Amino acid sequence: MNLPGSPHFHYRDDVLHVEGLALPELAARFGTPLYVYSRTALAAALAEFQSVLQSHPDGSLVCYSVKVNSNLAILDLFARMGAGFDIVSGGELERVLAAGGDPGKVVFSGVGKTEAELAAALQAGILCFNVESAAELERLDRVAGQLGKVAPVSLRVNPDVDPKTHPYIATGLKSSKFGIPLAGAPALYERAARLAHLRVTGVDCHIGSQLLDPRPHHEALERLLPLLETLAERGIPMRHLDLGGGLGIRYRPEETEPTVADYLAPMIASVRGRGLKLLLEPGRRLVGNAGLLLTRVESVKPGCDRNFVIVDAAMNDLIRPALYEAWHEIREVVLRTAMFSGQSADRGAAVRGTAVHKTSETLCDVVGPVCESGDFLGRARTLAVTGGDLLAVLSAGAYGMSMSSNYNSRPRAAEILVDGQTPHLIRRRETTADLYALESRIPA
Amino acid sequence: MNLPGSPHFHYRDDVLHVEGLALPELAARFGTPLYVYSRTALAAALAEFQSVLQSHPDGSLVCYSVKVNSNLAILDLFARMGAGFDIVSGGELERVLAAGGDPGKVVFSGVGKTEAELAAALQAGILCFNVESAAELERLDRVAGQLGKVAPVSLRVNPDVDPKTHPYIATGLKSSKFGIPLAGAPALYERAARLAHLRVTGVDCHIGSQLLDPRPHHEALERLLPLLETLAERGIPMRHLDLGGGLGIRYRPEETEPTVADYLAPMIASVRGRGLKLLLEPGRRLVGNAGLLLTRVESVKPGCDRNFVIVDAAMNDLIRPALYEAWHEIREVVLRTAMFSGQSADRGAAVRGTAVHKTSETLCDVVGPVCESGDFLGRARTLAVTGGDLLAVLSAGAYGMSMSSNYNSRPRAAEILVDGQTPHLIRRRETTADLYALESRIPA
Repeated sequence: MNLPGSPHFHYRDDVLHVEGLALPELAARFGTPLYVYSRTALAAALAEFQSVLQSHPDGSLVCYSVKVNSNLAILDLFARMGAGFDIVSGGELERVLAAGGDPGKVVFSGVGKTEAELAAALQAGILCFNVESAAELERLDRVAGQLGKVAPVSLRVNPDVDPKTHPYIATGLKSSKFGIPLAGAPALYERAARLAHLRVTGVDCHIGSQLLDPRPHHEALERLLPLLETLAERGIPMRHLDLGGGLGIRYRPEETEPTVADYLAPMIASVRGRGLKLLLEPGRRLVGNAGLLLTRVESVKPGCDRNFVIVDAAMNDLIRPALYEAWHEIREVVLRTAMFSGQSADRGAAVRGTAVHKTSETLCDVVGPVCESGDFLGRARTLAVTGGDLLAVLSAGAYGMSMSSNYNSRPRAAEILVDGQTPHLIRRRETTADLYALESRIPA
Repeated sequence: MNLPGSPHFHYRDDVLHVEGLALPELAARFGTPLYVYSRTALAAALAEFQSVLQSHPDGSLVCYSVKVNSNLAILDLFARMGAGFDIVSGGELERVLAAGGDPGKVVFSGVGKTEAELAAALQAGILCFNVESAAELERLDRVAGQLGKVAPVSLRVNPDVDPKTHPYIATGLKSSKFGIPLAGAPALYERAARLAHLRVTGVDCHIGSQLLDPRPHHEALERLLPLLETLAERGIPMRHLDLGGGLGIRYRPEETEPTVADYLAPMIASVRGRGLKLLLEPGRRLVGNAGLLLTRVESVKPGCDRNFVIVDAAMNDLIRPALYEAWHEIREVVLRTAMFSGQSADRGAAVRGTAVHKTSETLCDVVGPVCESGDFLGRARTLAVTGGDLLAVLSAGAYGMSMSSNYNSRPRAAEILVDGQTPHLIRRRETTADLYALESRIPA
């Protein structure tokens, strides 16, 4: 059973590598905890989408969902491959521009766009605003008018399909804060079409995240198609259809994930001949299994029914286990049989004086040093580790660094992008002084 | 029913004030979202502990739990009042030192102290290491020996008392990663007493957080007392007893919280005459109700069975509702009857062209602009608000800013410490450029 992230993350001589680099070498050079991404994995994931979309004759654009991992180097890589971007804030717009992204390929989603954010996006000349409510339509029209601009808009329509995912990442139910009810969409489109500073260009839909079954996506599209016909009859033809994101990834080795073709081909077939450009907003699928979190074991503490493997990464680095009860596969970087002779985990342990013998496999909770019981990366795992060893938390490219915090005054991890044999430091490790650089004491 | 944070947070002429300042003025001057603290409330909360502890003849020290809110200005204020500090990382030690705190009043807790952190704390000359395991004892002895130091230590003993709080913040159960089982403590103390570079000075215990019933604390102490006698018989007398933290606060107006005396007096009575200095590690109780999160309503979006009040604060600013299902009281800053004539919420709304009429009360979910359904600050609240209004999220002084992140590329909020009529900016708002200042693109 191959690893999530395989073949870009793989064992060679019983040592886990990212592309051509052994993780113990990265740990020795850059320290831990460390986010490590594979450039080849990132590029391959985007290329898979682009390749399937080539079969759509009316044009298409993959707009990477920036919130998932917003490092400038990753945005830059995707921009150079021709991707657009799905943003949800003015901060993300600035990131895309700083990374050299094309604002003409940016779509702006989200329920709480401020006037300043709308204005910045209008000035930048983005591709489309995914509008979430009647109030936002009015606001956008007014801001565009003040700037002498015309805002391209789609309405985010809520198909009320249950994606059967974690409640926090299900977004297409009618009880959600997101989108416009399908039944109310035609009237709102007519209202939008009458506003002088808007140009209605599309329909948008996003039902949730981490879907391993593509059928809810297909069902959502089937519910949208009659709307397109209704709008055409009313003289409001659509130029594009934005199918959102949400395609899931394997987190557990035993899971299977649909291919991009499994997910997209039926939808491409459904819209063929309608003259609709397709937009897609994948995020997790492009970066999730292109990254891991590398951490070192501080110590192994015996518990009453299992061991606690205390590592130097924590909930501030990766909050998904605590927040969503998410599973991340956790693996020993150096397997017990390894005879890795370089800057290995064992060598590191020997230097620091901890035991170098390998323990046998035991049932463990992998926990961080943060002072709460919610600080765990994985529970009830079977691992053979001792103090000084390295562990890899897999599938950590998505919603890892982008959700990280400084809780417990912990500097955030560094990020490395591996390209073949070359590690690029794409974000330096924070220092403690960085954490309070913006703070001031008050006069006594 | 008075507000959590009363009397330092109070309505005057139907406008919510912090000490002598109206919140609309702070919003106009410093923007939103904004953390606002009352200096008087902070000082009063610490003084309540110090006052009760004066009745203990053998000495005592309040060590503020830095992780709860680690702003330098708050640490400085407490240091000037004579407090010590409970830290859980090297970053927190650096904060205490940067704030002018006395390292001789610092205790170091936590399950994953690194060698570098132990060394830094030894060099600084802290009061005590709260040691969590046999492996940590050995490690600390070794590091102290290398530095030619003697490390003062207490062992964190786990009394296996159920604090009946959220599982993520219950820390004293035997299934927890924290502490040493009570039954194993005497042997480990004997081992510690034999190590050359350690000086055994105390016993430490912390059973959990946000306890509104003090009896689990009392029960934990009763379980510890026989240990003290056992240790004395074995020639290892204790000089201090660290009772940890965990005293809860009112989050809901209808809740009552125990007074500090309710919580402490029975414990002081239990240890009287034993010659034990008492250490306490309160956190939430000192800062929780001394702060609020001020946010502006972007818009009100009708939902199928309730309205969504979309505000400019989000789960990245305050993650407690999403992470712990925590309740924070949310109040309108300007009540409907108010005729506040300054830079009020209504005036702000009028300037920006949104409706200025007040809506009647409706059932609402208060949600942020972050793109997931877990982004809520409060659900099923009854509020009368419209776009442009201000809301106050109460009891946000604890685990608010210290757990905040940049998710969705949102700059973190500014922090204000109000002293009478004077607002001090104690942390400036992040800029978007701050967020990616540490990142680099890679060569094409």
